Amino acid sequence: MHTYSELSKPEAKEILAELMKKYSEYKSKNLSLDMTRGKPSTEQLDLSTDMLGDSAYKTGKGVDCRNYGMLDGIPEIKELFAELLEVSPDEIIVGGNSSLNMMHDCVVNALLMGVSEGSTPWVRQGKLKFLCPVPGYDRHFAITEKFGFEMIPVPMDGEGPDMDTVRRFAENDRSVKGIWCVPKYSNPGGITYSDRVVREFAALKPAAEDFRIFWDNAYAVHDFTDEPDKLLNIFDACKEYGSGDMVYEFASTSKISFSGAGVACLAASKENCKYLKKQLSIQTIGYDKLNQLRHASFFRDAAGVRAQMKKHAAIIAPKFRTVIDILEKELGGKGIASWTNPKGGYFISFDMPGCARRITQLASEAGLSLTPAGSTFPYGRDEADSNIRIAPTLPSVEELAVATGLFCVCAEIAYLEKMLSE
Amino acid sequence: MHTYSELSKPEAKEILAELMKKYSEYKSKNLSLDMTRGKPSTEQLDLSTDMLGDSAYKTGKGVDCRNYGMLDGIPEIKELFAELLEVSPDEIIVGGNSSLNMMHDCVVNALLMGVSEGSTPWVRQGKLKFLCPVPGYDRHFAITEKFGFEMIPVPMDGEGPDMDTVRRFAENDRSVKGIWCVPKYSNPGGITYSDRVVREFAALKPAAEDFRIFWDNAYAVHDFTDEPDKLLNIFDACKEYGSGDMVYEFASTSKISFSGAGVACLAASKENCKYLKKQLSIQTIGYDKLNQLRHASFFRDAAGVRAQMKKHAAIIAPKFRTVIDILEKELGGKGIASWTNPKGGYFISFDMPGCARRITQLASEAGLSLTPAGSTFPYGRDEADSNIRIAPTLPSVEELAVATGLFCVCAEIAYLEKMLSE
Repeated sequence: MHTYSELSKPEAKEILAELMKKYSEYKSKNLSLDMTRGKPSTEQLDLSTDMLGDSAYKTGKGVDCRNYGMLDGIPEIKELFAELLEVSPDEIIVGGNSSLNMMHDCVVNALLMGVSEGSTPWVRQGKLKFLCPVPGYDRHFAITEKFGFEMIPVPMDGEGPDMDTVRRFAENDRSVKGIWCVPKYSNPGGITYSDRVVREFAALKPAAEDFRIFWDNAYAVHDFTDEPDKLLNIFDACKEYGSGDMVYEFASTSKISFSGAGVACLAASKENCKYLKKQLSIQTIGYDKLNQLRHASFFRDAAGVRAQMKKHAAIIAPKFRTVIDILEKELGGKGIASWTNPKGGYFISFDMPGCARRITQLASEAGLSLTPAGSTFPYGRDEADSNIRIAPTLPSVEELAVATGLFCVCAEIAYLEKMLSE
Repeated sequence: MHTYSELSKPEAKEILAELMKKYSEYKSKNLSLDMTRGKPSTEQLDLSTDMLGDSAYKTGKGVDCRNYGMLDGIPEIKELFAELLEVSPDEIIVGGNSSLNMMHDCVVNALLMGVSEGSTPWVRQGKLKFLCPVPGYDRHFAITEKFGFEMIPVPMDGEGPDMDTVRRFAENDRSVKGIWCVPKYSNPGGITYSDRVVREFAALKPAAEDFRIFWDNAYAVHDFTDEPDKLLNIFDACKEYGSGDMVYEFASTSKISFSGAGVACLAASKENCKYLKKQLSIQTIGYDKLNQLRHASFFRDAAGVRAQMKKHAAIIAPKFRTVIDILEKELGGKGIASWTNPKGGYFISFDMPGCARRITQLASEAGLSLTPAGSTFPYGRDEADSNIRIAPTLPSVEELAVATGLFCVCAEIAYLEKMLSE
């Protein structure tokens, strides 16, 4: 055989004509063959499928969740989250097991790439600020602290963050880029934002066009009374103002299924989803779809989730009751402290000005670990040294009774020591 | 009852004394109670455990993988990865299901926080560069392209990247911050870096002290011949030069278990791990430990993984054989193209200068999808228009025979068309 470079032009033309005939034959077969990506074959995936027990690995539409693909989540889990959050499935991006990670990634994305096509990355806009309703969630504050935002505390009242403060900062200062919100059963205050507050968020006119509301709806379905709080859907509220692009909403099944192995999601406007998916396509090939399927199959729909939450409530409610009854019995009427009595969520917020650090110190020395005093404030700075977040879900009712009894003793000691030293 | 503010000092002292007695009693009980975090209780986790079938959820040491905790992975999976990568378990950080995501996050971390305590974030160092051995992995290049690095192609030869080029850029230009490497069965070339190349990487003296080698050992155990390539352990090589902090190694089970739901890991020096874990602690509460446990239980140890890889080889090897035999039969001896014949990995790399775009176009029109020509080069720019990455794992042997037959026809047509037009 000769090499092709030795062919004369007529020889080459002749061979080419024969090849074109063969090519036409291939074409007539209407082939659909894919050699684009290094995807394992079904046979290869079958090698490990015993690991899954008898769990399904195909979606209703036959997509194999063991393989690559479906960057933003399988339809089944998108539909489930969409129903729970009252948005459309194409306003949902499903992530890994951590909504905190999704919030972190949204901040990172805004810092490095900007919040939309063509917008200036936050890192190129000098010193930035973030609004932090207080008391709030320490892990939110940790993200904005890590990236050097100046965090501005915003006081909370019974309806949510003080909106005058929010507006004063957000509407007058372009360096204010966002706000952390836990709008239902807030961490730690247990406050559900009132309809007025949600509407005022929707109506916000931030000075920075790349301002984002981080709406961490961590406790969207985490009610434990028969008359649960009802949170207005912020995206509905935004429709009136055309402000839907301002909101990133987050949720997860961490406290519905498994805190170590749940499924997280982001809800956002179609425009935001489109942009975020583009960024995400560079970040990962896709999250764990088998876990998404596992969850979608187990819960089926929002009603399935709500039924599950009633079972959680049956476990949790007596724990909150225990703590609150003891607080009431031991500290009630003494005029020394206040605490919340939430209808859902995960925390009781306790306040005794000037005493929080001492209480946690006394408790710790007697074997009771509490969230460090100050941790519900940016930089861990509770100027009033007042707030302590009490997390009643993990211990048993019996343990909680002991723990809360001890807590009250510590609180009274701290109060009296302070009073006597003044 | 009076409020405490109405107490006289003697009354207050008396109450305090009683409280101190109660407090001592609590102390004498040696309590260990935890109300710090909003962790669900075991009873709550049990509500969803049916979702797991009969899979275990506790590690050998009794850690409940359903709950929060263990940021950097359960010991069982760390040990497994450590054995596979020949490092110590405390040099392993386990992630989610995507090693690409871990690489992305390492780049993000370096950009925003720097590569170590006190080092200057990359974003504050002006225009940056990254070395890209070519042909290489498009998803690597996509990350550095997204963040605006100038990507410098480094030619590959049979032993790996051309180290003179690597040194010329890395050792003389502080803006060169890293290099993408797939050191075993490189994507797409199938090259395993020689011991010399690995040692020269270890001996590299980059101008930038925050230079990092992204050592994507994606195909660490993905052999499919009886005489597999052996990659020198770069961390061992680094010991001689004290350069271990320069390397981030990545691996995953994506092509061992499930590409959509495997477990990924990062191997790095203890110093790097300490720093990265600190950053990670702000990013997430932890990755899916149930999936880690599922994998650790299924594979048990490195030998279990190697046994699994032999089964993969039995499926994959005939597919590579099919493609290579047909390439040889149809194109061999014609002097028009070259291709690789790897001993492992996922790709065959095909070269025909000046013809890659035309080949993929012809193939596409006849129903065969190929990775876009150019995608193995930064910015999709293959100046020689030569390289095509062939991925033989997904189709069946029968489909591959058809696909490769068609591919060869397209290649010959492209060659002859080009020849006749010159």
